[in-house]
Amino acid sequence: MSAAPRMVLGLSMRYLGYHAGAWRHPDANPAGTADFDHFSRLAIEAEDAGIDLLFLADGVAVRVNDTPAGAFAQSSQVADLEPLTLLSGLAAVTSRVGLIATASTTYNEPYHVARTYASLDRISNGRAGWNVVTSWSDAEARNFGREHTLDYETRYERAQEFVDVVRGLWRSWEPGALVHDKSAGRFLDPARLHALNHVGPHFTVRGPLSVPPSPQGRPVIVQAGASPAGIELAARHADVIYTVPQDLDAAIAYRAALDAKLREVGRDPASVRVLPGIVPFTADTDALARAHYDELNALVPTELGLSYLRAQLGDLSGCELDGPVPEPTDPAVRSIARNLIDMARRDGLTLRQLSQVVAAGFGARVLVGSGRAIADDLQRWMESGAIDGFNLCLPLLPDSLTRFATHVLPELRARGLFRPITEPVTLRERLGLPALAYGQR
Amino acid sequence: MSAAPRMVLGLSMRYLGYHAGAWRHPDANPAGTADFDHFSRLAIEAEDAGIDLLFLADGVAVRVNDTPAGAFAQSSQVADLEPLTLLSGLAAVTSRVGLIATASTTYNEPYHVARTYASLDRISNGRAGWNVVTSWSDAEARNFGREHTLDYETRYERAQEFVDVVRGLWRSWEPGALVHDKSAGRFLDPARLHALNHVGPHFTVRGPLSVPPSPQGRPVIVQAGASPAGIELAARHADVIYTVPQDLDAAIAYRAALDAKLREVGRDPASVRVLPGIVPFTADTDALARAHYDELNALVPTELGLSYLRAQLGDLSGCELDGPVPEPTDPAVRSIARNLIDMARRDGLTLRQLSQVVAAGFGARVLVGSGRAIADDLQRWMESGAIDGFNLCLPLLPDSLTRFATHVLPELRARGLFRPITEPVTLRERLGLPALAYGQR
Repeated sequence: MSAAPRMVLGLSMRYLGYHAGAWRHPDANPAGTADFDHFSRLAIEAEDAGIDLLFLADGVAVRVNDTPAGAFAQSSQVADLEPLTLLSGLAAVTSRVGLIATASTTYNEPYHVARTYASLDRISNGRAGWNVVTSWSDAEARNFGREHTLDYETRYERAQEFVDVVRGLWRSWEPGALVHDKSAGRFLDPARLHALNHVGPHFTVRGPLSVPPSPQGRPVIVQAGASPAGIELAARHADVIYTVPQDLDAAIAYRAALDAKLREVGRDPASVRVLPGIVPFTADTDALARAHYDELNALVPTELGLSYLRAQLGDLSGCELDGPVPEPTDPAVRSIARNLIDMARRDGLTLRQLSQVVAAGFGARVLVGSGRAIADDLQRWMESGAIDGFNLCLPLLPDSLTRFATHVLPELRARGLFRPITEPVTLRERLGLPALAYGQR
Repeated sequence: MSAAPRMVLGLSMRYLGYHAGAWRHPDANPAGTADFDHFSRLAIEAEDAGIDLLFLADGVAVRVNDTPAGAFAQSSQVADLEPLTLLSGLAAVTSRVGLIATASTTYNEPYHVARTYASLDRISNGRAGWNVVTSWSDAEARNFGREHTLDYETRYERAQEFVDVVRGLWRSWEPGALVHDKSAGRFLDPARLHALNHVGPHFTVRGPLSVPPSPQGRPVIVQAGASPAGIELAARHADVIYTVPQDLDAAIAYRAALDAKLREVGRDPASVRVLPGIVPFTADTDALARAHYDELNALVPTELGLSYLRAQLGDLSGCELDGPVPEPTDPAVRSIARNLIDMARRDGLTLRQLSQVVAAGFGARVLVGSGRAIADDLQRWMESGAIDGFNLCLPLLPDSLTRFATHVLPELRARGLFRPITEPVTLRERLGLPALAYGQR
């Protein structure tokens, strides 16, 4: 049994969870989306349950002008806290769980990103991670002097250079740079503190970074590489890859493509962890889990559900609410949208029904069942060897975490899949990733 | 006695304190400059002592190429943590003390600054402040794609617009915007969440901000307005002004000029707190305080001390280290340099001794004496009415804080000047500043 691979479990903790109607549930605290105490209690509960890492998605905009006012008024996914400040606060109230924050390569400067993440990494004693995103929305562009997001190629070209610069800055401090010799009056060895002197098409950055490395060398790098440029970026840099496959075949195909790409750039496939997102709705029995799912879905207002669908599929005016899901007008549709359309075709969902599925899971795979049923599913995925664990996109926090810890974790533990690490190790160690030599950072 | 104005006390906590040689002291922990536990213990000690606010100066560069290698190796002011992440961590381990971080208007985007500070302000339950700086050094420019800093006029023009945008974003959430009506399915009132739609010469920012306001409405704004454009910026925006006058006459003249400027822009002079920096060296008696001062000064590494002196006096090569301080070759010497030379003549200081004095205080006013002697000085300044308290630029942390709390605070308390606030109030309330109406944020 101990030969089974250890399942890595992340918890996505933004807002009150993934379900768009959950804030209306009697157990929900709507103020929690921007409340430190809410996240603090949640982080401690997750750490105590043996969750490996907390994951904070992000976008640097409120889409007030991009959403119909009716739907906008119904959404809890508006008020938030900034990820780096929030996770730094959580670092101080936890001691073991990993802390992964999202930052955009399109609207930041690499020196700031290198510095804030290195700082979080030290504050947390080596538990930080950076989820690299390139920011697709125009709403974000408009907070940073642009009308529209950068085109896809430029965005990923900038992202590649951005991550190169950040990693270069993270190599500023060669081991032994800090001497701290009081009697000789020698605080550091300048020969081991390296300027970067990067000059590139997007950035010119001298360095060095002011923040010395944490015990894990540098923050863990996370990417959701799905598109061609995304998988290229992930293959070059990522330690953890977040994916949203709708079925196991897709996950297996993705892993094969990723491994080929990793070998192509000279990296060992075993040095990368792949964590698909799942949205589990669980209870004592399958029937109770289904009732819980239905109860939450009934709380999603139609208009809000449709607005999320619109964000993925584009204009839906003129479509029959209880009719079939239309093909997108733009053929170069993003992979999330493609997944949704394929799902609707496969399961025969109407537009309304698909809008509820989206509002329930935002494109991540929804699982509804008892602890045993969900554990069966997760075990099957783990045994495929295509993945290394899961990122839990729970519907309602903290309620769904308590449910998952009560119903699913004991099942996984009994099967030898879930083996929580109780020591305060670095995030890298917790992920079972090999230590990085200085030059590999 | 209760009629005496309440003295506001800040603690500047960067690195190990202000003294360039302090890291070599037997009680110093050189690793503390970039260690969260060091700052955590310090913050708790400061809060328990009744300190009103923690102040974190910052620069976004290590000046590795700008300092002679010999001096560079001797400086502890190199390795640090990033201010916002550090203070967010400290917010979680404290409950009363104010938390003021420095951020540059030259190398940031207003949306990010508005968001991270608003987030820290919520995490700390209304205890955050933003120290607005414009970044004068070329070392910083070189980490952000420039060879040299922006010229003075452009820097301050950008700063004025930057602060306008940040304050505009902080007004995104009108009171009552968060409705949280579960039964009606109404999370917020879109009519009370305001886009900014700012279009200016330096920034185009739509908004709104994703982070709702804290109990103090917005973070406190701090500025070190000294130059003409600086005092203009401070008069328009600052709640707290940090100054470094060398004597009381200068402080009185500054306050008069500031008050005139505040009235000019329609602000009440009573709505601004002025906190000059001081560097106190204290002990049981005047003689022991002097011995402590001499002990620390003897620890200033020679090359490092001379590098500070060179920055003021110019080239010193060919001068006898233990000989007299030379007259400057340039007759149009700056007033700081003239003051230093006059001090050396008056006190009979050698070049080495003068370099140590400079390295002891970095330009802030040095005080050496027993608790009573220092309290006498601070009382005289408070009674002038020109200032509202002090920012403590202590030589060695945490040692100097313990000394100040032991020797000076009881004296100030006995005189009714120091009246620590023990309730968890907002930073604004702690400063005795009037509450801000929504439109005044």
